[in-house]
Amino acid sequence: VRPLRISAANANGAKDKPFNLLDTFERRHIGPRTADLPEMLKVAGASTMEELIAKTVPAGIRLKRELDLEEARSESELLAHFKSVMGQNKVYRSYIGMGYYNTIVPNVILRNILENPGWYTQYTPYQAEISQGRLESLLNYQTMVSDLTGMDFANASLLDEGTAAAEAAALAFSTGNRKKKKFYVDANTHPQTLALIKTRCEPFEMEVVVKNSFEEMNFEGDDVCGVLVSYPNSNGEIHDYKDLSDRAHKKGALVIVATDLLALTVLKPPSEFGADIALGSAQRLGVPLGYGGPHAAFFAVNNKLVRKMPGRIVGVSRDSHGNPAFRLTLQTREQHIRREKATSNICTAQALLANMAAMYTVYHGAQGLKKIATRVHTLTAVLAEGLKRMGHTVEGNGVFFDTIRVRPTSGNFAIGQRCDEKNINLRVFEDQAIGVSLDETVTEKDLADLFYIFNLKNDPSITPQAILKELEEAGKTSVIGEFARKGEILTHPIFNMHHSETEMLRYMKHLENKDISLCHSMIPLGSCTMKLNATTEMIPVTWNEVANIHPFAPLNQTRGYQVMFNELERDLCEITGYDAVSLQPNSGAQGEYAGLRAIKAYLDDNGQGHRNVCLIPFSAHGTNPASAQMCGMDIVPVNTDDHGNVDFEHLKQLTEKHSKKLACLMVTYPSTYGVFEEQIMDICKLIHEHGGQVYMDGANMNAQVGLCRPGDFGADVSHLNLHKTFCIPHGGGGPGMGPIGVKSHLAPYLPSHPVVPISGPKNYGTISAAPWGSAAILPISWAYIKMMGGAGLRRATEAAILNANYMAARLRDHYPILYTGANGFVAHEFILDPRDLTEKTGVQAVDIAKRLQDYGFHSPTMSWPVANTLMVEPTESESKAELDRFVDALISIRQEIREIEEGKADRKDNVLKNAPHTAQHLLTEKWEHQYSREKAAYPLPYLRRGKFWPSTGRIDDVFGDRNLVCACPPMSDYQN
Amino acid sequence: VRPLRISAANANGAKDKPFNLLDTFERRHIGPRTADLPEMLKVAGASTMEELIAKTVPAGIRLKRELDLEEARSESELLAHFKSVMGQNKVYRSYIGMGYYNTIVPNVILRNILENPGWYTQYTPYQAEISQGRLESLLNYQTMVSDLTGMDFANASLLDEGTAAAEAAALAFSTGNRKKKKFYVDANTHPQTLALIKTRCEPFEMEVVVKNSFEEMNFEGDDVCGVLVSYPNSNGEIHDYKDLSDRAHKKGALVIVATDLLALTVLKPPSEFGADIALGSAQRLGVPLGYGGPHAAFFAVNNKLVRKMPGRIVGVSRDSHGNPAFRLTLQTREQHIRREKATSNICTAQALLANMAAMYTVYHGAQGLKKIATRVHTLTAVLAEGLKRMGHTVEGNGVFFDTIRVRPTSGNFAIGQRCDEKNINLRVFEDQAIGVSLDETVTEKDLADLFYIFNLKNDPSITPQAILKELEEAGKTSVIGEFARKGEILTHPIFNMHHSETEMLRYMKHLENKDISLCHSMIPLGSCTMKLNATTEMIPVTWNEVANIHPFAPLNQTRGYQVMFNELERDLCEITGYDAVSLQPNSGAQGEYAGLRAIKAYLDDNGQGHRNVCLIPFSAHGTNPASAQMCGMDIVPVNTDDHGNVDFEHLKQLTEKHSKKLACLMVTYPSTYGVFEEQIMDICKLIHEHGGQVYMDGANMNAQVGLCRPGDFGADVSHLNLHKTFCIPHGGGGPGMGPIGVKSHLAPYLPSHPVVPISGPKNYGTISAAPWGSAAILPISWAYIKMMGGAGLRRATEAAILNANYMAARLRDHYPILYTGANGFVAHEFILDPRDLTEKTGVQAVDIAKRLQDYGFHSPTMSWPVANTLMVEPTESESKAELDRFVDALISIRQEIREIEEGKADRKDNVLKNAPHTAQHLLTEKWEHQYSREKAAYPLPYLRRGKFWPSTGRIDDVFGDRNLVCACPPMSDYQN
Ligand SMILES: Cc1ncc(COP(=O)(O)O)c(C=O)c1O
Ligand SMILES: Cc1ncc(COP(=O)(O)O)c(C=O)c1O
Ligand SMILES: O=C([O-])O
Repeated sequence: VRPLRISAANANGAKDKPFNLLDTFERRHIGPRTADLPEMLKVAGASTMEELIAKTVPAGIRLKRELDLEEARSESELLAHFKSVMGQNKVYRSYIGMGYYNTIVPNVILRNILENPGWYTQYTPYQAEISQGRLESLLNYQTMVSDLTGMDFANASLLDEGTAAAEAAALAFSTGNRKKKKFYVDANTHPQTLALIKTRCEPFEMEVVVKNSFEEMNFEGDDVCGVLVSYPNSNGEIHDYKDLSDRAHKKGALVIVATDLLALTVLKPPSEFGADIALGSAQRLGVPLGYGGPHAAFFAVNNKLVRKMPGRIVGVSRDSHGNPAFRLTLQTREQHIRREKATSNICTAQALLANMAAMYTVYHGAQGLKKIATRVHTLTAVLAEGLKRMGHTVEGNGVFFDTIRVRPTSGNFAIGQRCDEKNINLRVFEDQAIGVSLDETVTEKDLADLFYIFNLKNDPSITPQAILKELEEAGKTSVIGEFARKGEILTHPIFNMHHSETEMLRYMKHLENKDISLCHSMIPLGSCTMKLNATTEMIPVTWNEVANIHPFAPLNQTRGYQVMFNELERDLCEITGYDAVSLQPNSGAQGEYAGLRAIKAYLDDNGQGHRNVCLIPFSAHGTNPASAQMCGMDIVPVNTDDHGNVDFEHLKQLTEKHSKKLACLMVTYPSTYGVFEEQIMDICKLIHEHGGQVYMDGANMNAQVGLCRPGDFGADVSHLNLHKTFCIPHGGGGPGMGPIGVKSHLAPYLPSHPVVPISGPKNYGTISAAPWGSAAILPISWAYIKMMGGAGLRRATEAAILNANYMAARLRDHYPILYTGANGFVAHEFILDPRDLTEKTGVQAVDIAKRLQDYGFHSPTMSWPVANTLMVEPTESESKAELDRFVDALISIRQEIREIEEGKADRKDNVLKNAPHTAQHLLTEKWEHQYSREKAAYPLPYLRRGKFWPSTGRIDDVFGDRNLVCACPPMSDYQN
Repeated sequence: VRPLRISAANANGAKDKPFNLLDTFERRHIGPRTADLPEMLKVAGASTMEELIAKTVPAGIRLKRELDLEEARSESELLAHFKSVMGQNKVYRSYIGMGYYNTIVPNVILRNILENPGWYTQYTPYQAEISQGRLESLLNYQTMVSDLTGMDFANASLLDEGTAAAEAAALAFSTGNRKKKKFYVDANTHPQTLALIKTRCEPFEMEVVVKNSFEEMNFEGDDVCGVLVSYPNSNGEIHDYKDLSDRAHKKGALVIVATDLLALTVLKPPSEFGADIALGSAQRLGVPLGYGGPHAAFFAVNNKLVRKMPGRIVGVSRDSHGNPAFRLTLQTREQHIRREKATSNICTAQALLANMAAMYTVYHGAQGLKKIATRVHTLTAVLAEGLKRMGHTVEGNGVFFDTIRVRPTSGNFAIGQRCDEKNINLRVFEDQAIGVSLDETVTEKDLADLFYIFNLKNDPSITPQAILKELEEAGKTSVIGEFARKGEILTHPIFNMHHSETEMLRYMKHLENKDISLCHSMIPLGSCTMKLNATTEMIPVTWNEVANIHPFAPLNQTRGYQVMFNELERDLCEITGYDAVSLQPNSGAQGEYAGLRAIKAYLDDNGQGHRNVCLIPFSAHGTNPASAQMCGMDIVPVNTDDHGNVDFEHLKQLTEKHSKKLACLMVTYPSTYGVFEEQIMDICKLIHEHGGQVYMDGANMNAQVGLCRPGDFGADVSHLNLHKTFCIPHGGGGPGMGPIGVKSHLAPYLPSHPVVPISGPKNYGTISAAPWGSAAILPISWAYIKMMGGAGLRRATEAAILNANYMAARLRDHYPILYTGANGFVAHEFILDPRDLTEKTGVQAVDIAKRLQDYGFHSPTMSWPVANTLMVEPTESESKAELDRFVDALISIRQEIREIEEGKADRKDNVLKNAPHTAQHLLTEKWEHQYSREKAAYPLPYLRRGKFWPSTGRIDDVFGDRNLVCACPPMSDYQN
């Protein structure tokens, strides 16, 4: 136990021992300089950092020692070390398939999207006027998905194919009014997809029926809500589901097709045989394997289902000048969800990866994709024919795209040995059949290797060249036959104009430059923790030994990854005070779901299966009730008091009322109102006394790391949004990671995986398609922790709290701060409350948000958790200069509001109501507003040194609709 | 010999054989699609590509076969292959020093500058209004250099330390009015620096006197123009040159100090002992070793010499609205050069690397740099003390910074073996002393390894820890003593505000976004060939096995590099028809110099040493006469005729007149007027008949590759600007590479190197500090050739010619095209001639150039080679859509000019004269111009979809001054 240091003195001080390298990270990560601290503390109202923290964080929960983590490593040291750790991975050539394929990531996309902070540091495009670039790209994604699947609508990505399938099952269930409990799945579905469906259906008491043949599926009982088949299926076979579909539809069951976008460039689309939902992974469209992720899943539906579709959808609208503009649309789905009860908790998705896939499609165009698909198919046909000549059996109906299932005549052992000799992975089915999936990276030599592996008699006449020649001569290079797609694909001009690298580069840069990212200015989104995503953290993500490993590669090939997982789990345990961590959930909401399922499983196992009430304060994030709902829990809202705290009296009443049935409390800490509740220990104790468990939403861990630990003050389980506190970039709406930490009694209930053996024996199911979720981005969080060390992490937290309090103090004379803690301090974020002004001037939070765009800033979180307010979270990475610039902007806006109050500006025609102002609008011949063009464009001098121009005027949108950070219903909807 | 194919049909066609990977490069590199060709050809006036080429390139010189190069490799194939080639390099830990040190490249700079097309695809910032970002950064570089050296002025980089020293010697010579022929050099100067000085001084018949002790240098004879000493010197010793300097100055000799910027953060600056010039390499400020380059050299002078300083200088000026603005300044040096005869031919320099070094300084600031320097010094003191304890002799005066020269008591052999065991390189002097240079990357383990290597008796008491402790206790961690720097360094705010990564990232992005690069729009600069710099070509540049090798590492550690050099040399020979290539010159101008020196050496060796006349057409680029001048040649200009061709009659007269003394002709082909001269073979023959050699300037090779070869039609030697034809990016004014190709008779006269044994026995000297110049960027050109293949390269050339002719055809009814070939076609570039309009409307080429900025375009080359004209070179990489957009802009501008002609617009107050228009200016309250704001900002609809805003109004500048692409005098100045 080390003594608690007064940290101010060290906040940016490198340790100047001559033997230590000087490229230390902490001072690069933390914004304020040591020299800034005295003034900032003074403004904030504390004389030392320790005093500030003491007055902010309740004494009872303070950690009385430094976190026990490894010494901080310098940036160059860390990369050298990690290179050797990851050197323990073996990058084998994978033919495993199962939804994950090698792909050629176009380097121009790799460098200018995945490795470019201009794309990866953006936030979800809720502020549409300064997000037109990525909205356009996501719209391209949707267009591509709709086009290839033939469906009417597609969303802008889900987390992975497995969760997409689970979402589809839930959607089918809700479409059947939760009455039809049976759900059919074809046995030849990828096992991880099946596992996710089963896991998700269980709380709804649905019956997942797995059928060996889809022909056997019987809908006569009127009890089937849907059916999922794969096209091609997991064995590679292609089937016609027309008859199935007709039978299902006759009885109102939804037909859900898991499919493959590359295959669909040459296969007729699922819409042709009547699919209601088509889903799958867009990974193979230019997104690296990454040992499981991150990748974007797609989800497309017919007309009737669009209002029930999970995930975000981009749509075209118009701005205040009547010009077309993109925005996140159909937020009315929330109303729908409200009515029918939530079926989905999707918030963070996979925007960055959807953008990569979209760009891959733009780059290749219809012809390019068809060529790639045709080549993959031809090579597969050659392989299949070769295997037959060697005497092996290619199982199935003989109609395949890129995957075949082989039953070797004999010699599995020898085949295995030859695979090892060639560093090749094949799929091995339970019944010892072998699966081989080809992809666009397969070379002539690769095919020769495969022939070698299977050609156990070494027959020299069986060569890829010879067989290709024969097949070409016989006109048999394709086996698709009647499944061949007719008509053109991807006819939209966007897929036909940027095929040279120069054009592609300019298109990506053109879109990038329309969007505000962390490259421009601070993004003070409360609850989102838009901190530095450091380059050194990002660099390993695209290393070969990180990026190019199949998620189901044998564990002895991924020792480097295992080392990293173990260290990260251990470090997260130390940081949170939990005893075990699962790295599987690939978003915060998935973490919530996993955590609640762990609670349920634990209660079940302990004869408390009847406990089903989940208490959730009104202040909770929408994903909380959605996740609880998905676990089949009964949600009971808890009031909050005037300080933003849980109303302890109300909580007491509710615990007593529901004592017998109490399963858990979900509570965010510090609260979503930005306050460290004093009573958190009492709250946890109360819940435990009533036999419940405490789920602490870890979205606000950035205020806790190194200062207090949920595992110490009574929580049983939390998710950690690694894309918030632990530096994974937001990517414009994903990727993210939401691992959960649990106390030891819940450890046996962490998620498992059907293909890769992980976790304890009591686990209840599977949360993500890949065993460690989006494994390739875990190095970001791992590196962050390793470069900061225990004291560094604590100082980051302190700086985050200082930054928030400094800003709050500077702003409080201008806007009321809605909630503060016992001593008048806020935690790491705070709510500005302009509602008084609305009455006086008509100005709403949204007007301030839009006006901030004219000042070159992204708005704080709008209307969440309190309608018509703004929640500011600066994070520790912002410098004092940047905080001041933002505060000055808000103060200047306050002055602009005052002009309305004082009648100097018009209530309707003013710089706020008309914000944002585009250059085009400001330059129109006739200026008909009651303020000057310059006032609109350059309210503060810094804007003259370099102004970010919004690309559209205000987009026509229902008030409040776009303000929610996630498309999940606010807690108040659960009250009745 | 393969048949010549009609290429149009294949221009973008991938070979669709199933075994070939589909990520072919040619269609990504070439802009126009196959489908565009018919229309483009039609507009250009040819029915097939073959017809166009036949009518453009003289039949007599056409290559009648395809280039004999390897089959084109796909992008992914190429990288996989190159990874294995470069895997043959061994990356040893280097302590060699000698001007090249390991450095920690801050990853945020690596990713966002060196790996970011937004920084590397820019052109030299002659169009200052759209280049304020990099001008600011280069000004930071100058400020940093002046500050650390203590000198009055610094330039914005030279090619390397060696050439900087040679430039300094030449400057001293010219300052001494070319009368004082003696130049002293301290013997303890890096050998490559000494070699370059000797090479450069030879043509001036200067006597380079190397003195073992600077105390011995005697100025009494009044015949010494300058002296060069090093601080610290090549042995690592630090000396006081005050007395030397006083003695030199008394006799009017210049004192030139080669120095080290990191050392200067803690050492008193050379200005304090009276240096007139300080120079050196900025490599160790965050630029990778790269096996020799590219790196930026610095050059700083006192007040008196600023008008003679070589290289580009950024200065602060004002724009048309009176706001401060940056520009390339002191172009009046050209007048100076004109008067006194050129001493320098610097055109392409090392802007990108200067920007990296500048950003490294901004990132670390004064305190950071001092800490780094102090740490390096302390570790060196520990090492020196350790070596003494082990019984070795540390030679010299005991005052050092980071380098020591050790005389082992015995045991050199064992030390060598231990080095190999630890993969370590030390410097070995000729007399078997050993040099060790430490740097910021040295870790505790590295120091332990060094102790192990030298601790031959394995005395366990001698450890770095023990010695550090002792030195610390004795207060002896520094040996700098009286040389310690007093006073603050780098006090400018820019070095004290961007120290967090977030701030740093934003600063770099802020600057990037002010500048037009190839990420925005085409940069049709005639003679500059701003083509695609493909990502796949760029990726290897920052690989560990490419970036982190010392230029003087033993050759058996650089086998991968050797393979690449050999292949590139061979390929360039095949492409040019030459017999041998030297990869040493690191700019085109250096290539000219190397080539002319080869000619001179050859003539000398063949008893023709008296031949000294160099014929140069008026149309030649300024570097041609400058280079000839530096070779001590007599320059005789040749007229050009009305078609832009060499005036053959005049040439005949001159060859006859100078027959006895004719050394060579320098000719650019196709001509700088953009024309394939029909008589080129006759011209070469004529020169040869008179005993001369033909130097063909290869700047325009982009019009020849695959169609004709200088080695076939009579040229004896050429340089190839790899940063033009062969895809090395321009980097905002460098890096570049200018290898030379020669016919076999000149092959023995390729440059050599004093440290690394290369080239034949007859070579005359050294051109670059590193044996293969900027080796780390050679993979770019190598990869380009390998991915295009012979036919691909030919098709690129054809597309470049088509693009130029298409544009010329679309433009010729709007602006006269100044020169065309025999059949009315241009080569790969053409000159627009608005001089008629000037008379009628007052509009000059500069006004069109500036107005193009309002259209989002970088101007074509202005006023070169013909004053008040614009030279357009589209390159093959631009798509038809982009060509059309640019042409439409020029046509729209022509219409704007017509409005002046027709009296509809004012002669003075019009959109051209007031261009470029900034947003700020357009938004001013009162609009007092005779045209509308919208007309100024949005003359064409595409601008409304995304406009690039110039950041300043027109910068106040002498007309014509900034228009020259390089700071070298036009040929016409040599007439008298
Ligand atoms: C308090 C809170 N809980 C949960 C979540 C959901 O996390 P995710 O977006 O990773 O699914 C968020 C996301 O913003 C949040 O703010
Ligand atoms: C015709 C010509 N020759 C020579 C050069 C000089 O080349 P570098 O800039 O590489 O020194 C140039 C550069 O623009 C050029 O255009
Ligand atoms: O597919 C292309 O034509 O680039």
